[in-house]
Amino acid sequence: MSKRKLNVAMIGSGFIARVHSNAFRQVGHFFDIPYEVRCTVICGRDRAKLEKAASRWGWSGVETDWQKIVARKDIDAVDIAVPNALHSAIAIAAAEAGKIVLCEKPLASSVEEAERMTQAVQRTPNGVWFNYRRVPAVVLAKQLITEGRVGQTYHYRALYLNQSGNDPRKANTWRYKRSEAGMGAAGDLLSHSLDLALYLNGSIQELTAMMHTFAPGRDVDDATLLIARFANGSVGTFEASRYGVGCQNRNTFEVNGSRGMLSFTLDDMNQLDFFDAAEPTNLQGSRRVAVTALSHPYGENFWKPGHVLGYEHPFIATLGDFLNSIARQEPFHANFEDALAVQRVLQAVERSSASRGWVSVDAA
Amino acid sequence: MSKRKLNVAMIGSGFIARVHSNAFRQVGHFFDIPYEVRCTVICGRDRAKLEKAASRWGWSGVETDWQKIVARKDIDAVDIAVPNALHSAIAIAAAEAGKIVLCEKPLASSVEEAERMTQAVQRTPNGVWFNYRRVPAVVLAKQLITEGRVGQTYHYRALYLNQSGNDPRKANTWRYKRSEAGMGAAGDLLSHSLDLALYLNGSIQELTAMMHTFAPGRDVDDATLLIARFANGSVGTFEASRYGVGCQNRNTFEVNGSRGMLSFTLDDMNQLDFFDAAEPTNLQGSRRVAVTALSHPYGENFWKPGHVLGYEHPFIATLGDFLNSIARQEPFHANFEDALAVQRVLQAVERSSASRGWVSVDAA
Amino acid sequence: MSKRKLNVAMIGSGFIARVHSNAFRQVGHFFDIPYEVRCTVICGRDRAKLEKAASRWGWSGVETDWQKIVARKDIDAVDIAVPNALHSAIAIAAAEAGKIVLCEKPLASSVEEAERMTQAVQRTPNGVWFNYRRVPAVVLAKQLITEGRVGQTYHYRALYLNQSGNDPRKANTWRYKRSEAGMGAAGDLLSHSLDLALYLNGSIQELTAMMHTFAPGRDVDDATLLIARFANGSVGTFEASRYGVGCQNRNTFEVNGSRGMLSFTLDDMNQLDFFDAAEPTNLQGSRRVAVTALSHPYGENFWKPGHVLGYEHPFIATLGDFLNSIARQEPFHANFEDALAVQRVLQAVERSSASRGWVSVDAA
Amino acid sequence: MSKRKLNVAMIGSGFIARVHSNAFRQVGHFFDIPYEVRCTVICGRDRAKLEKAASRWGWSGVETDWQKIVARKDIDAVDIAVPNALHSAIAIAAAEAGKIVLCEKPLASSVEEAERMTQAVQRTPNGVWFNYRRVPAVVLAKQLITEGRVGQTYHYRALYLNQSGNDPRKANTWRYKRSEAGMGAAGDLLSHSLDLALYLNGSIQELTAMMHTFAPGRDVDDATLLIARFANGSVGTFEASRYGVGCQNRNTFEVNGSRGMLSFTLDDMNQLDFFDAAEPTNLQGSRRVAVTALSHPYGENFWKPGHVLGYEHPFIATLGDFLNSIARQEPFHANFEDALAVQRVLQAVERSSASRGWVSVDAA
Repeated sequence: MSKRKLNVAMIGSGFIARVHSNAFRQVGHFFDIPYEVRCTVICGRDRAKLEKAASRWGWSGVETDWQKIVARKDIDAVDIAVPNALHSAIAIAAAEAGKIVLCEKPLASSVEEAERMTQAVQRTPNGVWFNYRRVPAVVLAKQLITEGRVGQTYHYRALYLNQSGNDPRKANTWRYKRSEAGMGAAGDLLSHSLDLALYLNGSIQELTAMMHTFAPGRDVDDATLLIARFANGSVGTFEASRYGVGCQNRNTFEVNGSRGMLSFTLDDMNQLDFFDAAEPTNLQGSRRVAVTALSHPYGENFWKPGHVLGYEHPFIATLGDFLNSIARQEPFHANFEDALAVQRVLQAVERSSASRGWVSVDAA
Repeated sequence: MSKRKLNVAMIGSGFIARVHSNAFRQVGHFFDIPYEVRCTVICGRDRAKLEKAASRWGWSGVETDWQKIVARKDIDAVDIAVPNALHSAIAIAAAEAGKIVLCEKPLASSVEEAERMTQAVQRTPNGVWFNYRRVPAVVLAKQLITEGRVGQTYHYRALYLNQSGNDPRKANTWRYKRSEAGMGAAGDLLSHSLDLALYLNGSIQELTAMMHTFAPGRDVDDATLLIARFANGSVGTFEASRYGVGCQNRNTFEVNGSRGMLSFTLDDMNQLDFFDAAEPTNLQGSRRVAVTALSHPYGENFWKPGHVLGYEHPFIATLGDFLNSIARQEPFHANFEDALAVQRVLQAVERSSASRGWVSVDAA
Repeated sequence: MSKRKLNVAMIGSGFIARVHSNAFRQVGHFFDIPYEVRCTVICGRDRAKLEKAASRWGWSGVETDWQKIVARKDIDAVDIAVPNALHSAIAIAAAEAGKIVLCEKPLASSVEEAERMTQAVQRTPNGVWFNYRRVPAVVLAKQLITEGRVGQTYHYRALYLNQSGNDPRKANTWRYKRSEAGMGAAGDLLSHSLDLALYLNGSIQELTAMMHTFAPGRDVDDATLLIARFANGSVGTFEASRYGVGCQNRNTFEVNGSRGMLSFTLDDMNQLDFFDAAEPTNLQGSRRVAVTALSHPYGENFWKPGHVLGYEHPFIATLGDFLNSIARQEPFHANFEDALAVQRVLQAVERSSASRGWVSVDAA
Repeated sequence: MSKRKLNVAMIGSGFIARVHSNAFRQVGHFFDIPYEVRCTVICGRDRAKLEKAASRWGWSGVETDWQKIVARKDIDAVDIAVPNALHSAIAIAAAEAGKIVLCEKPLASSVEEAERMTQAVQRTPNGVWFNYRRVPAVVLAKQLITEGRVGQTYHYRALYLNQSGNDPRKANTWRYKRSEAGMGAAGDLLSHSLDLALYLNGSIQELTAMMHTFAPGRDVDDATLLIARFANGSVGTFEASRYGVGCQNRNTFEVNGSRGMLSFTLDDMNQLDFFDAAEPTNLQGSRRVAVTALSHPYGENFWKPGHVLGYEHPFIATLGDFLNSIARQEPFHANFEDALAVQRVLQAVERSSASRGWVSVDAA
């Protein structure tokens, strides 16, 4: 079987570009994909750093000008892993050049930007790295909700806490500057929680939010808190913070429904807690499902039951699903449109925080 | 040693009166108190039920008219354990008759009522059964905060979830009627969370809240959610619900501060989780402290290290501390004034929910 | 309804006598019992200490000579809460005087002694305070095993660890002396684990054991470890130690059977973990059952669902069940015969440790 | 920088060969190694399966006769990932041909075989895939023990439980046949526990063991239980079983020492629980250290703090350390000698199980 070659260009060379590089290297080991993925070129500002990354991860070439990459005929796909403020220019140019486009989250710095990006990719396969959608435990949660095992949803609550803001060594990067990141904890952390909420519990109708900055002089939010009403009648709370001292990367959600409860925390990402209220009262309890069985999402792709996955596996699964989707010409999610929906909620958060009142989330 | 006799009247004969009765029976077994507590009379509407309660718990007499009790010269203390709407009349009459007054929470159905009650008890010893203040783990949390082990507080978050509203058998009692309970989840559950928050993290300046009713036709809130700013600069989220399916009595709080994190859940009430950010990075972790050592709060009162306490022990400790406070003529907390402060926050919650905006919490 | 009076004498005034006193005080509050329990007299060596205990717990009289108590016609029941070496003389005398006899565990210092005691109580109601049998989670475990929810048992494992031996302040009491305690960790801790094992998993056929003393000069075991074969074909491991640093009172058991797994730890005594292997693979997980529902063992006796019990409640339940059993003239367990069975295993442990080989557990 | 090429031959094409293949593919991405690893050839019995594995993992060639591989001059390293009974012939031939030799555990089917293998590799770099030694939490445990943070060890206990034996679909492979596997749970599971015990707590002097088979007609042990004395004066219990229903891959150890306690379970492999008995009593508790900080073992190699590792990462770390060790001509552990030490304990287990008594573990 000869596979179609897929020449990939990576734009970016920081931490997340490293995670994406790993996904490109690993996807063929764990997923049956109809492409021969070729790591063609990696692009960034610092040539020395690029050379090192290329050598380590097997990118065939390096480039410091992303526009040259977009102009190359031999590049099939462009993966955007640079600070948020740069996403739109690259994505739009790549889409206009007919490239397949993958982009890190949050998609953009504003709804307007995200709309232009989404418009630009209408005719090209596109995806956004909302990686947590493909944690097996999260997919299982989605399945249980879809099957009605949780019943009518009453409550959705999500936390995303890290402690980076409290750490002077970390709090000096592009992520802490409005000009480069657009938002602070809201874009960095809350966007993940919102994407999962929209995926698992449907659209948000209205919300009231507070964006708060603890550090004097910082121009992005250190923490964002909000209360929301979902279209399905449930109510939600969200809290994202870089001042969650004691939490390094705590991404949690809980759902209370008429038939049960789901709890997830990224700290224990191979587990999903499920309380089945349909059980007899004396046997009700939150069961900790180790989501590593063959019958679980991605259970056939990676290791054996009881052999846990790590941070990078959902990225590999995202890429595997993406490549299979585009080969079958089927829609892939999360795509730019999904990410635009997150952006609309983030915008509502900003509006509410400014107006100190409830605001509707604009429909598409 | 001859102790002063303390003749107690219990007003109420439901579940919580049973818990209070146990406290009166047990307090002398675990606390050195300068009173001989005498369970003199129990008062309620249903004589048959009263007789049974009196026989079981050793109340010497029964009475169906609380006003007769207030009028009795031999009664020293009145304990109010009836539905919220009845608190104020009894408390004020008892106070005016010079009785020591203990009252269940929430103190009242409105700030105005709570103010009149607080006014009435100015010259008599008074206390409110905010029992969770005396869970040893909660007292330890307070100690650690006071000692600066948590540092400057950034985040305070609290949940109080049960599933009673989703259960037709339970959702038909006085607690689900505005005329008797005043509020729903807010008065029943959130009041506990707020009292602990004020105790542990100081006063709340402003908040925005949503009170939501899931059940058609019910006139109290099934769930109340809010975001708050504390006077100490920290931000908070609170969620109280009777639709927290999967949770029977989940009362939790978490504090993130510049030096550490505290986590408590009533499900594991003998434990406090403490993350000490002052530890070397490679040994940082949330430590689960079993709060049963002799050196812990109430460690000398009950059993041995590793021998856990149950739901009723904080009530016993509340009573033990209360009796010793009044003997020493020292202020006891939580008293009516503390409960009034909670009531002010609850009122702000109601105002915010109605106005759909941020509101200040009125100062005293 | 006039109840039969039951005059009780407590022999002992240490920690465990305090726990028993509490049970006598509380049993009528939580159990419907056909007796009016009267705390008639408490007996010990130190009169000052006795006076204090009597005053605190409401024992009507004090006595320093247990033989006088046995001789009193008005005493109906004798409760033995003194060091192990004194159990047999008191129990036999009390039984011969026709008293109801309750005794702390371990029953005796040897099988011979236990046999004589068991013989002596043949015609009088008798019970042994193997309190952990009446932890609601343990009773639920028994129910699940009996109902076949665990299937054929393969493995039974139990730990009982505390850290008292490592603590010079604690390791100087009667519990550390062969002359008074008979055994060390084996009698103190392992006896509990063995009673639960016999209750939950049936009789032990043979075992090989090691008794080990860490502290130079101490003449009892600090730790006892053993491997066993049960009559039902399962295999077991037991470990009891006073050098389990990090554990204050960790009493755990786990059962693996063909249909599921049970896990219990006294640290979380209100919970039972149940893994149901009959569930579909993708929903299998250990569920944490909060054993506080009305439908749970003793769920109607104490508080409400989600309101946890403490260390003393299983003692109260033991006494409640005991009194109802004797009133109905039904056998109560654990009785002296059950405790004798534990003693036979303990003797096998000693023989195996001495012979360094497998030994059979003598049948009755 | 031009790196020395390292041509690797993989012998085996089953699950564990897949895990090793991944390690060879990934090692250069996460470790600075002085080799260019080349996946030269994969060898197995089934050519179709081999072709597929080669294509998926990038092995340049396939071979069905391992002796041809050993004879090839261009092969630098041979990795043995076949059933146990085949280890010795391949390892000895490869060593005699001067190859670097890596071998899966358990090293051999007998001490004699393991001795011959160890003898054979005296002059060639060699390693054994005791992968759990390189779980970051395990390395941290070793560091804490070495630094004296646990003090004098009293107890070491280990469980390794899966449920494969209870599952007819799994219990029919080579692992369940003496002729191919040598032993059952002892070789498969206990060998891991023993290697960790020797690594963490030093050598075992004597033990008494029971090997038990639940399934009629099966000629290897389904479960092996043992009690041991270590050279450092501590006592240990070990239990390995394929009938641990409820556990998919539960590999745990606990250490109680004079200054603290360590607990590890592979179910939560990114965490180590540490109880520091040197803390003030009121702050003692088992702290859950997320072993993902930069300052943790392998913290610089993989992702960021709070970004967890999976099953395969310790294999990658094993290979990274191995390659660096051989480049620096330093000893690597676990090597054949370390695995021989495990084999000696396994032999003692067999002897004890047969003789039903304590046996000494033979020294080298």
